[in-house]
Formats: sequence, structure tokens, C-alpha cells
Amino acid sequence: MIGEVIAIGDEMTTGARVDTNSAWLSQQLAAVGVRTFFQTTVADDIEAGVQAFRIAAQRADIVIATGGLGPTRDDLTREVLAMLMNQPLEFRPEVMEHIQTLFSRRGREMPERNRLQAMFPVGADVVPNPQGTAPGLDLTFPREGLPPSRIFALPGVPAEMKQMVQATVLPRLVASGLAGQRVMRQQVVKCFGVGESEMESRLGNMIARDRTPSVGITVSRATISLRITADATDDALALQQIMETRQQIYQLVPEFIFGEGEGCELQDAVSDALVHRAESLAVIEAGAAAPLAGWLAGKPGFRAGIYVPELNDLEKRKDEPQEEIFARIASENKVDWLLAVDAYPQLPETDQPLPAFPLRVLIWKAIPSSESKGELQVSELELGGHPDIVQDRIAKAALDILRKQLKRKTKDN
Amino acid sequence: MIGEVIAIGDEMTTGARVDTNSAWLSQQLAAVGVRTFFQTTVADDIEAGVQAFRIAAQRADIVIATGGLGPTRDDLTREVLAMLMNQPLEFRPEVMEHIQTLFSRRGREMPERNRLQAMFPVGADVVPNPQGTAPGLDLTFPREGLPPSRIFALPGVPAEMKQMVQATVLPRLVASGLAGQRVMRQQVVKCFGVGESEMESRLGNMIARDRTPSVGITVSRATISLRITADATDDALALQQIMETRQQIYQLVPEFIFGEGEGCELQDAVSDALVHRAESLAVIEAGAAAPLAGWLAGKPGFRAGIYVPELNDLEKRKDEPQEEIFARIASENKVDWLLAVDAYPQLPETDQPLPAFPLRVLIWKAIPSSESKGELQVSELELGGHPDIVQDRIAKAALDILRKQLKRKTKDN
Repeated sequence: MIGEVIAIGDEMTTGARVDTNSAWLSQQLAAVGVRTFFQTTVADDIEAGVQAFRIAAQRADIVIATGGLGPTRDDLTREVLAMLMNQPLEFRPEVMEHIQTLFSRRGREMPERNRLQAMFPVGADVVPNPQGTAPGLDLTFPREGLPPSRIFALPGVPAEMKQMVQATVLPRLVASGLAGQRVMRQQVVKCFGVGESEMESRLGNMIARDRTPSVGITVSRATISLRITADATDDALALQQIMETRQQIYQLVPEFIFGEGEGCELQDAVSDALVHRAESLAVIEAGAAAPLAGWLAGKPGFRAGIYVPELNDLEKRKDEPQEEIFARIASENKVDWLLAVDAYPQLPETDQPLPAFPLRVLIWKAIPSSESKGELQVSELELGGHPDIVQDRIAKAALDILRKQLKRKTKDN
Repeated sequence: MIGEVIAIGDEMTTGARVDTNSAWLSQQLAAVGVRTFFQTTVADDIEAGVQAFRIAAQRADIVIATGGLGPTRDDLTREVLAMLMNQPLEFRPEVMEHIQTLFSRRGREMPERNRLQAMFPVGADVVPNPQGTAPGLDLTFPREGLPPSRIFALPGVPAEMKQMVQATVLPRLVASGLAGQRVMRQQVVKCFGVGESEMESRLGNMIARDRTPSVGITVSRATISLRITADATDDALALQQIMETRQQIYQLVPEFIFGEGEGCELQDAVSDALVHRAESLAVIEAGAAAPLAGWLAGKPGFRAGIYVPELNDLEKRKDEPQEEIFARIASENKVDWLLAVDAYPQLPETDQPLPAFPLRVLIWKAIPSSESKGELQVSELELGGHPDIVQDRIAKAALDILRKQLKRKTKDN
């Protein structure tokens, strides 16, 4: 089946807001075997809206639209769909009742204009919205020489929209046989410390478009995700395909892999390793950024974060030796490890990739049998890149050095 | 003039990546008076690509596309445009020379497949790409009964694409009379501490769609931006309109405004106020997040950040009084102000809005004439919202309380 996603709103076509609903919807469709060829974003304009729906319904079996269902005069999706279907709008008392209940539960008077949200084109089904006042629409658009196209129009508020897709839209698509004929399974392997093009060449034929299962590469803030997607006739087969490909990836690029799963980040790998060793960590950050304390906050094994403009702001007396400073901080915070970044650079205002900045990552490890003594390892790095990601890349490089030490060293070393 | 933006790539139609190029391009077009009615995202597929360009060129005077110009077999935009224009692809030696120069400057051999990037449909102009190997295309698509549509196809790498738009695409549009007939000016007023719907009702008719200049509301991570957009025949007139509207906004919602300009954040307002008073600040964060140190890092007046899992991890001895702890930390870090958040909540994994969490914001201010004495003010808050923004909202609420104190109190108080 072919799907199409439509996002409605001037805030997107003027560029004031980036649309994230469409990517999420395409993922949901892919998971039930529906491929998206087109995503269309359209302004709050009746004529443009009708055109967008007409084109989409002609070329796609399933159309899911978001936005334009609020109570204001900019919200034109109900009128657009009435024109598309060539049906008048009618008042639905049961929808009105739901809207009034929501307002009275919040202890507020319903403004008169919210009556608009109970107007539906004749023949349209309602998609319930338990969280908000804008119910969705479910329509069947007839096509000449083809089975009809199924159209869903949902509110643009992401939390409401997502709940409605999971509770109503996907079940209806599966029940009507439009989706779910194949089982799709995904597994994500997370990597750090390598560029996208080098990763591509290391993986070779694994990333061929026509491979089964497919392996996709995406990069987000210097972290690489390898997404294995199996699309099979049953779950066991999909799972088996995933496991084989996963093993091949571990053979090809073992040194870069730090974890698995969409949400796994380097700080999770570090926290897991600390828990495994029953040890604890404090981080020290200097310069123009300090992301590590926030990333690690609340995670097991992480005990303290310190930010100072310059590393020697940590001195208690002039020229206190670095080893002493670190031993003191570790003892004050009762930790086994210190990770220090010296320092995040002040970035110039530019949209161009920046040259590499020199910096140091310091790792201090308490020597277990001794009183307040430790072993200090200093790594000199040079890291650059686009200004949006340079600081994150530095923080991640520091975490990755620590992660490798936590894995390599035995606990008693 | 009507514009349309096309984004090309399976990584977007599968939902693996959110397209941010299109929003940026629509903003650029708006700034030279071109309105975007549609943004289309299309898969890496020849037939779908030709269809997307054909529809766009029929309904828009200017089409800007990004993506699909790389050297791999997924990159089909050159072929798509050749089919659209009904012209064969020809080899351009001068483009080849540029690509080879780029490779040799990086000290690398050019792979054979990069020759593809020098293939252009007959009649297409080149859009130079000083930073990358993928030059852009500039075509003129004839339309029956209408002036021709101008099509630009650019690489998807944001830094390269943006440079090409500013250096070549916009100047060519202005030179050809397709853009720039009107002057657009924008000014952004930043607010915090109010919900979107309350802000809307406070602003009343200011946000009417047909107002000149227009006032748009966008919300990002609990910060509200009011964007005043004037579109006039000359610069002085646009500026005058902006200034009048700006003053009206200051009269309507003075208590929420903390600054102006796209990039201004609460931490900038706090840093500015500290500099103005010649005072300094340390922050203490406890719980499951620690964004403040990173936001303030490197800004004038900010001297230290401390993260601890729980606020009483700061005690040097059991039951050390909070006032003493704060006085000691202020003295150790030589600061006049301490801002503490106690504590960022551990969030459950959900996509639903969360109920309000109780927390405390503590502000400690040194009493200037005394030795290590201070005044402690504790605010009890309850803040909730979508899990993606709860921690940022808490951090911003804390900054906003401090900002108001910095503005209110005279330096000697």
C-alpha cells in the first residue's frame, strides 16, 4: 500500500516552524507495511488545501493529514474536506457533547466558536480525541478504476495526534485490510567515533538499497545510528533476519558500537559500565559549554557535576598541582572516577563548518588500596565540525574515552 | 510570486529524518516577497520525483529543491530533471574540473562514480558549490499560458545548500525580477511565563491574520516568540511599522518580555543583568537534569555550576544549615548570587503531558557589607507539561525568577 502524509499550516509554509509530525507518521505507516512516497505541507488556504488532498488521494491508498482542525478562522481543514468530497457540513450533536464535557471538566465556559469543531462533512466518520477539543475525520474518497482512498484528518498537536493514530487510525487501517499485511521489525545499533562516509565504506554492501533486511545510516549530533529493518511475512522470520545482520555489523565495525536501541546514548553506556563495576563518577567541564552533567543527571553511578570557566578556577591555592586538585574533588564527592573536559571552545557565529579545536580530556581513577591517590590519563584531541554539533561532539568524545577505559580495565586496576 | 519547496530523500519519507531545509528555504523566500503555498517531500524514486517537479512547476513560479545530487545510485535528481525537461544529460568538463580540484585539495583520489555529478540536462545552468562536490542546477520550465517557472535543485547538506542560496539563488531571483520587489523586515520579541492561549487572548486583535504588520506567535520549549513581520515598499516604512507594533506589545504584555532578537534566551537576559550590576553567579542543580550550567557556560557573570543528585549532598557535615552551605559555596566560588533548583524530577517514559511536579527555586544573595552572610529567598513552584520540555521549563522558570530579582533590586540592597 502507498501512503501520503499532509501537514497543514502557515506556520510551516512560512518556515516559522519545522514539521515533525510527518516524519513520525511515515514511521508509523512503515511499521504496518505502508510506504510513503510523498509528504506535502500546505498553507492555510482553501484552494491549496483542496488541491493537496485531491492529488494525494489520487496517488495514495491512505492519506493522513494533520492540522487545521482548531476553532479559529484559520482552521480550514473541515471546509477543505467538505469541498473535496462535495458534501455539505452538518452538525454532530455527540461531538458537541464531548467538547462541552472537556470544557466543563476544565471548569471553563465553552466559547461559541468551538461549535465549529462539531461540524463534519456528511458521510465522514469521527476519530475520537480524548485529550482535546478537535476530533479527527475519517473519510473514503472514491477513485475511478481504483479502490477508494482512505483519508484521515487529525489535529496538529503532536500528543493528541499520536494518541489518535495509535488508538484509532492504525487499528482501523488493519481492520480494513489496508495495513499490517507484513510484519516490520527494526533494531538500531548505535556507534560513535567515525564519520558517515567512512562508516559507509566500512559497511560496504550491507547498506545496498535492495538488501534484505535493509541497513540505514543516520547521523544525529555526531552519533551514528545503524537501523536494521526487516520486512517479512511473519515475526519469527523478521527477527531471525535482524539477528543475522546485527551479528555481521558487530564483526565489521566492533570498535565504534556502544549500544543498541533508539534511545541509547553514550551516557547510558557509561552509566551501565559504572553500575557493573559498582563505581561512581564526577565530571568537570570548563569553557563555553557543559552538556555532560545534564546528560548524566539522575543516572546510576553519576554523583556530581562541576562547571568552571577555566580548569584552574578549581585551585584552592595558587599552583595547586592538578593531581591534588583531582584527588581532593574525588574525595569530597566520594567518587572513583573523574572525567574532565578542558575546554569547550567559544564558537564564532557562523553557519560554516569550523576547523578543529585543540582540547584535553582528563580521566582520573582512584587507586583503590591507597588513601586519596589516583592515576591521571590525559588525551589530547582536535575536534571541529558544524557549530551546532561541535560541543556535543567534544562531550561525546570524552564519554567515549571513558567508556573504553571502563570496559578495558579490570576493577582492581 | 508563488514559491514551492521540494525535499528529496527516502530518509525523510521513511520518517528517519526530519526535514529542516524546507522551513529555512520558505523563510528565505518570504524575505524576498515570495509566498510558499506547498512544501513537498518525495522519496528517492524517478517516477515520483518527476511527478513532484511537474506539479510544483505548474503551480509555482519558483521551485527550490534539495537533495538527491550526491554520487551514489540513490541520487536521482539529475535524471529526474532531465526527464522533466525532456532533455538528455551531457557531460560538463568545467564542473568535472571543480570536483577534481576539491578532491585533490583534500589529498584524495576522486572515485569514478563522482563523474556522475558533472552530468547536467542540456540547457541547465550550474549553481556553483564552493564547499562540496555537488553543484546545483538552474532550469527554466516552460508553461502554457503562463510565464515559465524557474527551478533550482541544490544539495541536501544544509551548510552547502544555504551558502548556495545566499550566494547564487537569491541574487539570480532578484536579478531576473522574480523576487525582491518588496522589503520584508522582522523583529522578534521573546517572552516567558505564560501559555500560548493566554498570550493570544492578551494580544487580542494584534494577532489577526490580515494585520499590517503581522504578529505571529510561536512557542519553543516554553519560550514564546512574537514575530513582527512588516512587508512594505521601502525599508524606512517597514522599520517604522515594526517600531509602532513593538511598542504596543510592550504595553500589552510587559511582565513576560525578557529580550529581543531570534537568538536571545533567558540566560542572555540574566548574564546582561549581572554584567550591568558588576556581579556574578553560580548555579546549583539537583535531580534528573542540569541544563542551566550548559546554557550559562562561557557567558559573562557566570562563574560556576554544580550538579548533585540531591541538594543535601552539598553538606560538609550532617545537618549543616542551608544558609551556611550556600554562604560557603558562594565564598568558595567568589560569587554574589546563587541560583539553586531543587529538584528536576525523574520523568516517566510517556508521550503524554505530565501533571505538575512540585519543586523549589532558591536564590541566595550576598549581603555586601557583611562577611559571608546572605539573604535566601525560596520559591515553591509546580510545573508540568510534555516530557520533552518539562526540564527546560523548570530551568527557565528558575532563570526568570532570578532575572526579575536582578532587575528589581538595586545593587546595594
